[in-house]
Amino acid sequence: MAAYRRYRKDSEVSYSLGITLTFELLQHRPEQAARVFIHSAMKEGDTLERLLCLCREQSVEVVYTDKIFHVMSKKENCFVIGEFSKYEGQLEKSASHIVLVNPSNAGNMGTVMRSALGFGLNQMAVIRPAVDAFDPKVVRASMGAIFSTDFAYFDSFDAYREEYGERELYPFMLDASMRLQELMPTGAFSLIFGNEATGLPAEFSRVGRSVVIPHSHRIDSLNLPIAASIAMYEATKGKVS
Amino acid sequence: MAAYRRYRKDSEVSYSLGITLTFELLQHRPEQAARVFIHSAMKEGDTLERLLCLCREQSVEVVYTDKIFHVMSKKENCFVIGEFSKYEGQLEKSASHIVLVNPSNAGNMGTVMRSALGFGLNQMAVIRPAVDAFDPKVVRASMGAIFSTDFAYFDSFDAYREEYGERELYPFMLDASMRLQELMPTGAFSLIFGNEATGLPAEFSRVGRSVVIPHSHRIDSLNLPIAASIAMYEATKGKVS
Repeated sequence: MAAYRRYRKDSEVSYSLGITLTFELLQHRPEQAARVFIHSAMKEGDTLERLLCLCREQSVEVVYTDKIFHVMSKKENCFVIGEFSKYEGQLEKSASHIVLVNPSNAGNMGTVMRSALGFGLNQMAVIRPAVDAFDPKVVRASMGAIFSTDFAYFDSFDAYREEYGERELYPFMLDASMRLQELMPTGAFSLIFGNEATGLPAEFSRVGRSVVIPHSHRIDSLNLPIAASIAMYEATKGKVS
Repeated sequence: MAAYRRYRKDSEVSYSLGITLTFELLQHRPEQAARVFIHSAMKEGDTLERLLCLCREQSVEVVYTDKIFHVMSKKENCFVIGEFSKYEGQLEKSASHIVLVNPSNAGNMGTVMRSALGFGLNQMAVIRPAVDAFDPKVVRASMGAIFSTDFAYFDSFDAYREEYGERELYPFMLDASMRLQELMPTGAFSLIFGNEATGLPAEFSRVGRSVVIPHSHRIDSLNLPIAASIAMYEATKGKVS
């Protein structure tokens, strides 16, 4: 009998906790899905049938056990866990990107993925040091959007820029040259956001055209997923149906 | 010696956990501040001096104790707690409002307050049943914006409407008559948002003009604080400096 271990950054697999996320995994990344675990308290019925059917179609092993749930999930109503092998996506030069520079919070990264997918953006570059995109907390906060997102890690912004810099680059900073409402991209673009606590380093003001989301002085800043979502809304306005 | 009890909805006081939040309390709602608790691990220095000075100016009692920290905060770096008596604000008829109908998540409510303040909106109506705005989780998620926000609870949307309905009413719904980018309020307005899981009931389509934030079918919905923040950004655009 295998022993189940808590997820770690260096694990080769990660997990979708809950049936909704596991459906997203099986629908959008079936080739990565390894096993699906089902708890003894999982209700029989149409939903379970549909899940088992998907597993059969995709040749994904089904394991009936309660053990992994004790290790992986503190939620009482989590009766399905998907196990998947990690993958790295390929960014496209012709597509627009979200670039997260040194993101430190898993929930924020997942929330940005979810909003991004809502605005038709499913390519994300992540500049290290950065939170692990496969942390089950990212998977959960993304509400499955991670399985429809291609992302790639880079050791520095320069490394990203070298490969993908031929596009409209928009770093978001408080001290910027342009207000968000003036942003009207005409081709592929990258919206670039800094760390939750520190924002982008000052030298990003020389990268492309820096953008600010005007807000009152009553607050220090908007939080990262909110700032990124407002920016994506404005940048894609009229282009999403 | 008083025994400290965990916060409850029917407590007469609530708490700002941490020094930053406590500064916000003392600066924006000094008349509500009752006591400030200081942990023995709190570093001496300018910040503490400034805090003690504010307490003296506002005649707020300072209590040196570690006990309340064991009860109120699981965070290791929380060395200051503010205690304040609850208050209810007065909404203004001439001001724009955020209306949350049956919000169920404390973090979301606080995050909406923070964004709202950033967009110059500091009046919030809350329609019951709803999460308790004084929950320390709301205070924390608002990052202190709660102390600059006037909010009032109503037993139904009709009760709110009776008192404040003479304005532009914009319920946010997936099945709406107008896209957000067409929204151009000309006077005082209310942006109305439903519960996190269920959204607004269908009958809100007959309230004012319903609005949708267009997003792709790849996601079910944007999360509440994000949808509300995008809406506030668009509705106040050009009016916030």
